[in-house]
Amino acid sequence: MIGSGDRRRNSVGELRHEIVGKITEVGNKVAKFKIGDKVGVGIILDSCRSCQNCANNLENYCPKKIPTYGFKNTDGTVTYGGFSDSMVAHEDFVVRIPDGLPLDAAAPLLCAGITVYSPLRYFGLDKLGLHVGVVGLGGVGHLAVKFAKAFGAKVTVVSTSPSKKKEALENLGADSFVISTDQDQMQGVIGTMDGIIDTVSAVHPLLPLLTLLKSHGKLVLVGVVPKLELPVFPLIMERRLIAGSSVGGLKETQEMLEFAAEHNVKADIEVIPMDYVNTAMERLLKADVKYRFVIDIANTLGSTS
Amino acid sequence: MIGSGDRRRNSVGELRHEIVGKITEVGNKVAKFKIGDKVGVGIILDSCRSCQNCANNLENYCPKKIPTYGFKNTDGTVTYGGFSDSMVAHEDFVVRIPDGLPLDAAAPLLCAGITVYSPLRYFGLDKLGLHVGVVGLGGVGHLAVKFAKAFGAKVTVVSTSPSKKKEALENLGADSFVISTDQDQMQGVIGTMDGIIDTVSAVHPLLPLLTLLKSHGKLVLVGVVPKLELPVFPLIMERRLIAGSSVGGLKETQEMLEFAAEHNVKADIEVIPMDYVNTAMERLLKADVKYRFVIDIANTLGSTS
Repeated sequence: MIGSGDRRRNSVGELRHEIVGKITEVGNKVAKFKIGDKVGVGIILDSCRSCQNCANNLENYCPKKIPTYGFKNTDGTVTYGGFSDSMVAHEDFVVRIPDGLPLDAAAPLLCAGITVYSPLRYFGLDKLGLHVGVVGLGGVGHLAVKFAKAFGAKVTVVSTSPSKKKEALENLGADSFVISTDQDQMQGVIGTMDGIIDTVSAVHPLLPLLTLLKSHGKLVLVGVVPKLELPVFPLIMERRLIAGSSVGGLKETQEMLEFAAEHNVKADIEVIPMDYVNTAMERLLKADVKYRFVIDIANTLGSTS
Repeated sequence: MIGSGDRRRNSVGELRHEIVGKITEVGNKVAKFKIGDKVGVGIILDSCRSCQNCANNLENYCPKKIPTYGFKNTDGTVTYGGFSDSMVAHEDFVVRIPDGLPLDAAAPLLCAGITVYSPLRYFGLDKLGLHVGVVGLGGVGHLAVKFAKAFGAKVTVVSTSPSKKKEALENLGADSFVISTDQDQMQGVIGTMDGIIDTVSAVHPLLPLLTLLKSHGKLVLVGVVPKLELPVFPLIMERRLIAGSSVGGLKETQEMLEFAAEHNVKADIEVIPMDYVNTAMERLLKADVKYRFVIDIANTLGSTS
């Protein structure tokens, strides 16, 4: 077992479950890590370890998984994630942060990053030369652009905000940008996409997005919203699919981190001290952050990255 | 080119595009067939032959395909499918009916059969030992049961009609039967299915069906309905998907027929003479047929099967 130490950081507003730090202490049965290792704990603190999903390294779909934040654990304690004073995690649920990744820019990869990496892989959208759409350019969406580009895709950002065009094309490396409410712009990319990662967590029409897909194209929803209207004809006539996806298992999260280090995929972040957290929450409500706040809880970030 | 001869038959109500017969005449460039061969023409009479879908033997998704029935062809004529006095089809769009399949029971396979065979294959629901649900037990659904059983699945029929239980279990070989509006029966199969073929062509709730799927399960819609309500959470939290599928290409249709002959998959039909067609249409409106009418247009069925 390891204590995650005093250098946890976190992205406010994402349920405080993207935690990184250096190991300061290890239990005597720990084989995987040693003091000083850079590590992280994502959204899952434990799982049943006996179901089919756990057997397939898909702990994220284990019906008995223990979320890192806001969950009553089996021993009666409540998980507080990165806001805890101290934390104990089994080594099986701790991932290694590769040397090439700064701790702070790696933290959001543990939720937002794996949220897009996993479906890009599972749904075969990780092949060179595919055209991938990313709907919504926030904390999750900006990483979808970066990972899809790293896989070698042509990436088009679909957004309702013209103000994000420059950011998408110049800072994030997207190949094109279309306004979803602009008929002419949408018409220009109809039937061209192999897949779409839809990060929007609000009610929005799926029909315009489905028409952007080629035959056999895949629309993957990762933004939680209770229900949407499903147009059936565009699914049937072109054998398209709509799927959901939720983060990833421990093995794939580790793989994602290695891939991120190798391809220089980092979250765009704003590091803040703990006493800024209320201001940060207000700014989050206005979507005023590019793209994740990372809290340097013990003000040690300068000395550990 | 071949003339389909005077022995076309058809399933009323399915757009008259499941046509079978024996070849009576062949053009001088025809290499694939000879006089006397048992053949069929399904829903596609021609396609562009140059798009990506055509290149991948997916003529059914070609944007320029020519439907066999009710479509204005490139030469200005209108296609009337099995109701035509005569018909000319390119050999590329004609399939061979294997010797083991009677002509009449093979006819509905050309649309209803391939409609279920293709998604069972494409979505990996053709593996031994899977649990496949079939929603709706009509012309398409009864063939979904038969093909899924032939692939080695455990098959559960989900229906609103208690009267279909005996039929499903005893005549079609389904393993179990649940009433979709019966909470207890549905509860008994929650989270157990690898895939579902949903044949219902009317508005119906998807949430109860999605909950029947395991994690990563697949709900395939083949019944056309304008729109449905999409519950997003059950997709995301279990990485489930909803897809559509529309018949199959020529290569796969031929493969389906060979598979049907090998595994004794036949449509359950009622053969009728042409002058019964109006009565048949009235009975179709009451769903009073198990499961397809096949019209013996020239009253030659007795001598040709």
